[in-house]
Amino acid sequence: MPRFMDVHRGMEGITEELLKQAHDADLEIQHEEGVNFEQAWADPSMGLVFCLSEAPSREAVKRIHERAGHPTDEVYEVPIIV
Amino acid sequence: MPRFMDVHRGMEGITEELLKQAHDADLEIQHEEGVNFEQAWADPSMGLVFCLSEAPSREAVKRIHERAGHPTDEVYEVPIIV
Repeated sequence: MPRFMDVHRGMEGITEELLKQAHDADLEIQHEEGVNFEQAWADPSMGLVFCLSEAPSREAVKRIHERAGHPTDEVYEVPIIV
Repeated sequence: MPRFMDVHRGMEGITEELLKQAHDADLEIQHEEGVNFEQAWADPSMGLVFCLSEAPSREAVKRIHERAGHPTDEVYEVPIIV
């Protein structure tokens, strides 16, 4: 299954609890699009969140993030991993 | 040890072999700054590479990447991981 890295901006001050809530909101509905969110990393000072997922398509990742309340257009397919 | 996500741009067309070479160049010298590069993901169509590392500082990550031949200013500390 293709793997994706996506980026969220404007998340300045995000806490571990808020990131967990956002991640859990993805996890609750991800099966509806065949997505598997694996990990998320946040930089609260720069307001960035990076999410790694496996999914059937970029659009599937976007739809889950949008429905979970944190849309992003920055979803990158990362077929090369070392 | 702090963890970092960094982003490289302009990598359109990068192959698995080229990413491995770049990653290996980091691994060869990373101990000189106490950095541990853990994983790298590439999107060859958008020319993006994401690298995850543990390091004593953002500057240590930047110095290793610069000396290994692929400098970037986009090194983000990611203290929150879920």
